Amino acid sequence: MSTGVTYPRGFRAAGIAAGLKPSGRPDLALLIGEPGTTTAGLFTTNAMAAAPVVLGRERLERGRGRAVLVNSGQANAGTGARGIEDAAVTSGAAAELLRLDPLDVLPCSTGVIGEPLHVTPIVEALPRLIGALGEDGGEAFERAILTTDTVPKSATATAAGIRVGGAAKGVGMISPNLATMLTFVTTDARLDVEAARTLARSELAPRFNDLSVDGCTSTNDTVLLFASGAAGEDAVRPGTAAWSQLAGALGEVADALVAQLIRDAEGGTHVMIVQIDGAADDVAARVLARAVVDSPLVKTAAFGGDPNPGRVLQAVGAAGPALDPACVDVWIGEAKLVDGGTIPPTYFTGDGREAAARAAMAADEFTIRVRVGDGPGTSRTFGCDLSYEYVRINGEYTT
Amino acid sequence: MSTGVTYPRGFRAAGIAAGLKPSGRPDLALLIGEPGTTTAGLFTTNAMAAAPVVLGRERLERGRGRAVLVNSGQANAGTGARGIEDAAVTSGAAAELLRLDPLDVLPCSTGVIGEPLHVTPIVEALPRLIGALGEDGGEAFERAILTTDTVPKSATATAAGIRVGGAAKGVGMISPNLATMLTFVTTDARLDVEAARTLARSELAPRFNDLSVDGCTSTNDTVLLFASGAAGEDAVRPGTAAWSQLAGALGEVADALVAQLIRDAEGGTHVMIVQIDGAADDVAARVLARAVVDSPLVKTAAFGGDPNPGRVLQAVGAAGPALDPACVDVWIGEAKLVDGGTIPPTYFTGDGREAAARAAMAADEFTIRVRVGDGPGTSRTFGCDLSYEYVRINGEYTT
Repeated sequence: MSTGVTYPRGFRAAGIAAGLKPSGRPDLALLIGEPGTTTAGLFTTNAMAAAPVVLGRERLERGRGRAVLVNSGQANAGTGARGIEDAAVTSGAAAELLRLDPLDVLPCSTGVIGEPLHVTPIVEALPRLIGALGEDGGEAFERAILTTDTVPKSATATAAGIRVGGAAKGVGMISPNLATMLTFVTTDARLDVEAARTLARSELAPRFNDLSVDGCTSTNDTVLLFASGAAGEDAVRPGTAAWSQLAGALGEVADALVAQLIRDAEGGTHVMIVQIDGAADDVAARVLARAVVDSPLVKTAAFGGDPNPGRVLQAVGAAGPALDPACVDVWIGEAKLVDGGTIPPTYFTGDGREAAARAAMAADEFTIRVRVGDGPGTSRTFGCDLSYEYVRINGEYTT
Repeated sequence: MSTGVTYPRGFRAAGIAAGLKPSGRPDLALLIGEPGTTTAGLFTTNAMAAAPVVLGRERLERGRGRAVLVNSGQANAGTGARGIEDAAVTSGAAAELLRLDPLDVLPCSTGVIGEPLHVTPIVEALPRLIGALGEDGGEAFERAILTTDTVPKSATATAAGIRVGGAAKGVGMISPNLATMLTFVTTDARLDVEAARTLARSELAPRFNDLSVDGCTSTNDTVLLFASGAAGEDAVRPGTAAWSQLAGALGEVADALVAQLIRDAEGGTHVMIVQIDGAADDVAARVLARAVVDSPLVKTAAFGGDPNPGRVLQAVGAAGPALDPACVDVWIGEAKLVDGGTIPPTYFTGDGREAAARAAMAADEFTIRVRVGDGPGTSRTFGCDLSYEYVRINGEYTT
């Protein structure tokens, strides 16, 4: 059964161990769409963007990219001109074996920042990798892109005869220097490049931007959308019923991948959803949501299962967007802990609100909702708690 | 021997236990300057500012404030209109007993956010507090303002016959909801209100703004400067030698207090100084410095003593200010780990840089220096590591 990125028709994938990871686990993956496949991408905004991000962004701007070569083990970030050359050489070698134009193979890397790409083992493993390509290669692909992930992550959806699939790894700027969230979404819908870019922006970007493990934007974050056209339909165009259905299926796959990413967040024991309502606009709402979801004090309270309305007030108050303290309400679960900027004094004398909030926080997933006024701006951001395990993973690493 | 805030002439202080803290420790403090004392203040920028901050800011704007009544135990933040009333009532009761105008006693609070101020015990304790006022009260004062601090914090300096003293508690938005950094600086120089404000802005603000335990701006952060004029000199005016000497002494006291605050940071085991050079301007430099010093990945690396140049690159790249990756250099201690945006490949093969950086990080205090270009902007920010203890203090609190 074909899963993940090879669930849609028109794609072949593979994943093998090429010796890039000391552990010997799979670390080299390839995904290729049939001729005519179009591609769109979203990349990290980090100014220290990795070499594969620099090359990938440039190739997609030129409308190229039918395949992607992904390695785990080395991020090829902080590697300067040599990093660009290494990414060009390895993706170029894959293109030559695949008889593609070099611009049509996108490079993608995740792993240790600064350590040079292991070019020779990659080039030597390419014939084996290409020999392993198959329409049932989705599972091998999603395993070979992992770093500190504890489980592979993939999802599929269908809509009106069109299939959508996806695989992801990561999440956030994660442990021992292992940078990154990488996501690959495929569909057998036929899309021109502009349509693929539009859907990537409208259906994928908001969902992956509303995800924060530790507030650290990696040097390598990448989301790629490939459309093979193998469903055999006409090109899907904006404003049609097929467009809406495809958008829905893409959103479904993205939601499923985001949920898997946050559940596998480093050291995370609870998924924390922060919902902001009533902000001046969506941009302000997102800034407020990020301030709460990334606050180390809110994150440690989430770990301890301790409702701490003062910490939420502190975070929204310090976030930046102007707000009237008298218009701020906070709920944890269904319990309203702040009313018009004030924590009701009875909160401290056992009125039941604290117990209700504590019960909500004991679940695997809980929601903090903050209303900051009557504006139209809203945001919903996914985060997780800050645990001993996060400190252990990121602090106890010694080479 | 008179220490801390009563080291300069013209001040009396006291600190007693009024039953505001469950522990029974000292929790109510008073500082008063002799008639003619001028005052300047710096307050949190948090939009959810505590009631005493709202009142204190307003009174100082009107040029008032000869004394400050400080309680620990309740922050009087998130308490709405009732909080304003409670702060006015308690500081007003103190003013009445001291035969001062109500506007001349500033309220200051630190402790649990949301819990109402314990007005009755405070008012009942005031006669005893005022009876305890003395020129040797600095030590009792600095003990009564503490919350989770493990040691009292004070400093003194002299310059050309002028004395400067200070006391502080805090630091950052700290554990179980105990908000805040509070700092009180006194001098027996004679200063008009404008001069006091100028010195607070130029000598105190930059130093306290360059301090970050966890990136969380409290609802209660306050720095107050009192000038009694008791040194008997003429008013100190800008542009004179006395002004420079006084500025130097104020800076010395502020530096000493900042150092004590960061050393007593929650769960901190290492002081981390982040120095940014070559930014477009000081504002950009400060944004970059804060991004590094507050990064959970850099902070956990500091805890583990693991030099992790990739994490520093990630943090500066994601900070926001535009930068040319090819112009970024990073040092930990004296070891240059990033050169022109690139981590030298030999770093990973034992060229000695990693060992040198690791040795630097083993010290109680170490410096990460980042050069981001050739601009004039610089910043120097103090932070600390993120330890298991931080998670324990802030996560394991359960009522």
